Amino acid sequence: MGVNIIGTGSYIPENQVKNTAFSKKKFLNSDGSPFQATNEVIIEKFRAITGINERRYVDKDLNTSDIAFFAAESAILDANIDREDIDYIILAHNFGDVSWGSSQGDTLPSLASRVKNRLRIKNPKCVAYDILFGCPGWIEGVIQGHAFIKSGIAKKCLVIGAETLSRIVDPYDRDSMIYADGAGAVIIELTNDSNGILAHNSASYTYEEAYFLFYGKSYHKTQKETRYIKMLGRKIYEFAVTHVPKAMADCLEKSGIDITEVKKVLIHQANEKMDEAIISRFYALYHMDVPKHCMPMTIGEFGNSSVATIPTLLDCLLNGKIENHNLTKGDVVIFASVGAGMNINAMVYKL
Amino acid sequence: MGVNIIGTGSYIPENQVKNTAFSKKKFLNSDGSPFQATNEVIIEKFRAITGINERRYVDKDLNTSDIAFFAAESAILDANIDREDIDYIILAHNFGDVSWGSSQGDTLPSLASRVKNRLRIKNPKCVAYDILFGCPGWIEGVIQGHAFIKSGIAKKCLVIGAETLSRIVDPYDRDSMIYADGAGAVIIELTNDSNGILAHNSASYTYEEAYFLFYGKSYHKTQKETRYIKMLGRKIYEFAVTHVPKAMADCLEKSGIDITEVKKVLIHQANEKMDEAIISRFYALYHMDVPKHCMPMTIGEFGNSSVATIPTLLDCLLNGKIENHNLTKGDVVIFASVGAGMNINAMVYKL
Repeated sequence: MGVNIIGTGSYIPENQVKNTAFSKKKFLNSDGSPFQATNEVIIEKFRAITGINERRYVDKDLNTSDIAFFAAESAILDANIDREDIDYIILAHNFGDVSWGSSQGDTLPSLASRVKNRLRIKNPKCVAYDILFGCPGWIEGVIQGHAFIKSGIAKKCLVIGAETLSRIVDPYDRDSMIYADGAGAVIIELTNDSNGILAHNSASYTYEEAYFLFYGKSYHKTQKETRYIKMLGRKIYEFAVTHVPKAMADCLEKSGIDITEVKKVLIHQANEKMDEAIISRFYALYHMDVPKHCMPMTIGEFGNSSVATIPTLLDCLLNGKIENHNLTKGDVVIFASVGAGMNINAMVYKL
Repeated sequence: MGVNIIGTGSYIPENQVKNTAFSKKKFLNSDGSPFQATNEVIIEKFRAITGINERRYVDKDLNTSDIAFFAAESAILDANIDREDIDYIILAHNFGDVSWGSSQGDTLPSLASRVKNRLRIKNPKCVAYDILFGCPGWIEGVIQGHAFIKSGIAKKCLVIGAETLSRIVDPYDRDSMIYADGAGAVIIELTNDSNGILAHNSASYTYEEAYFLFYGKSYHKTQKETRYIKMLGRKIYEFAVTHVPKAMADCLEKSGIDITEVKKVLIHQANEKMDEAIISRFYALYHMDVPKHCMPMTIGEFGNSSVATIPTLLDCLLNGKIENHNLTKGDVVIFASVGAGMNINAMVYKL
C-alpha cells in the first residue's frame, strides 16, 4: 500500500511582470537611506543572484482562494475522481485573501472553506482547513494528508498551495522583486502499489531563527502603519545551505533509496544561487557532482510564489512543460522546501 | 494504547469587561440605521439570549501568540514533561497576531513558531504550525495530533487554541459584545492504557453555509476600509441546533460508549440559549432529559473566546474551578464545537 499523487493542477497568473517593471521604483535600504547604485545596477545584481527575470502577478480582481480553486479544479480533473470522495482539503498559504489595495488579510472563513464552496462539493465529511507553515506549507500539507491516510481517517486528500505575495510587498524594498503569485494542487490517494511517498521529514528552527522572515514596516519611513513581508536575506541563505542538504539526506536515508536512483530534486524556488548551493552541498555529502538536468528550475519565469512553487513545478514537469526535464513511472524525486518559521521539510517520492 | 491529555493550561485575561461597558456604544443595524430600543434594552436582551454578563480582553501590549505561550507554558508544567520531547506544536487561531490599534493580522512567522521560540525549545524536530478551522480549530488540532500519533510520526503534541477577538470587532455591531480573548492548551501523549480519545468526527459545511461567519465592513458606513468579524446569527443558530447534536451522537456511537456513561458535555461557548438547545436535542435523540450538571458553562464570565473556549473550560474543570462540576479518572466527556467554515467537530474522551 502506498500514498500516491494521482492528479496535479496549477494556476500560473497571466500577468508577466518583467524586471524592467521595477526600473522606476525608489529602492531604499532598511534604514530608509537611498542606494548609491542606479536601479539598472540593482536589478542586474538581483537577477544575477536570484535568477529571476520575471514573475507572475494575479489580476486585481483575484484573490488567493480564487487561484487555489483554479489549481484544485485542475487537479481534480487530472485525477479523474468524483470530487465528493475527497476526505480532506488542506490549503497551505500564509496571509489569507489580501484583496488588491487592502492591507488586511481575510481568513474568515478559512480559504479551504472558500475553495470547497467553489468546488461545489456537498459532502460535509470532506474536512477543509488551512495550514500556515511558511513556504514549506504545501509539502507539510502533503505530509499531514499522508498521516491522515496512514492513521485510517482519510483515503483521498486535496492539498493546495496558493499565495498572492504581490499584495504584501513593500515597493521600497529591493526584495519585493523576488515575490510572485501562484497556486498548485495535488490529489493524494491510498493505492495498492508500494510506490508513492517513501519518506518525509520536517523541522522548525525557531530558537534563533524564528524571525528571519517577518512582517515589518516599509523602508520608507513615512509609511507607518502597514506591514510587509521582510527578510534577513543573508541569514536565510546561510541557514538554508547549512540545513536543507542534511534534511534531504536524512530523508533519503529513511526511504532506503540509493542516491544514484534519484532522478530529480524539486527545491523551493526562492533564489537560484541558493538552490544551486543546496544541491551541490547535498550531492557533496555523497562525494558526487550534481548530475545534469537534476534540478528543474522555474524561478526565472515565475519568481518565488511561496507554497505554490513546488506543486506548480511538479505540475509543469509532469506535463512536459520544462525543457530537458521529464519523469516516468518508477522515477524517484526528492522534494525539499525552506521558509518562514524557519521551517524545512523534505519528501522522497517514487512515481 | 491510548492517546491521553496529560496536561492542561489556560490564560484568562485579567480585564473583565462588563456589559455596562457597552452602554454608551452607538449600535447600528447592518444597513447602518439606528435601533429604536435604548442600549439598556439591547444589552439586557443580549444577556438573556447569550448568557454573557462579562467577557475578558487582553492588555494592549499582548497579542494572540503571547497568550498562546502563557497557556502552553502552563500545560507543559502541568504535564511535567521535558519540553524538548514535544513532537508537534499545533496552534489553532483564525486571525493571527492583531496588535492593538492595528487592523492587520500578522502571521509571519506562524504563531506556532513564535510560541516555540518563547518556550525556548531547541529541538528542530518539534514541528510548529498553525491551523485555521474556525472556532472548532482547537478540537481539530487535537484530532490532527491524534492522527500523527496513530500514524507513528509523533508521541507527544502540544495543542493550543488562542484568539484575541476583541481586536477585530465592529464597535457599531451588537454582536461585538459576544467576543472575547483567551488561550487554552493541552499536551496529548501516547500512553499504555486504553482510555483517552475514543472517537472523533469532523465536518465542513460549505455548500450553502461557507459565509455564515465572514469578514465584513462596519455597520457605520463612513468606516470603509477595515473589515470585522460578522455573523448571520439566526442562520448559525439554526445550523448549529440542526447539525451539532447529530454529530455528537454519531461520535458517541463510534466510540461504543453508552449515553448513560457520559459525565459531561463540553460545548463551544458562543451562546447559552444555543448550547441549551443543542444539548436538549442531543439527549432527545436518546429520549432522555438532560442530566443535571452535565454541561459546564463559562460564557457568562468569559464570553466567546473562539478556539480558546473548550481548552480553557477543560482546564478550569480539571482544576475544580467550576461550581458543581468535577471530573475523576474513568469519566467520559464529549467535546463539541461549531463555528466559521462552517465547521463542526466532536470527540469522545475517557479520562
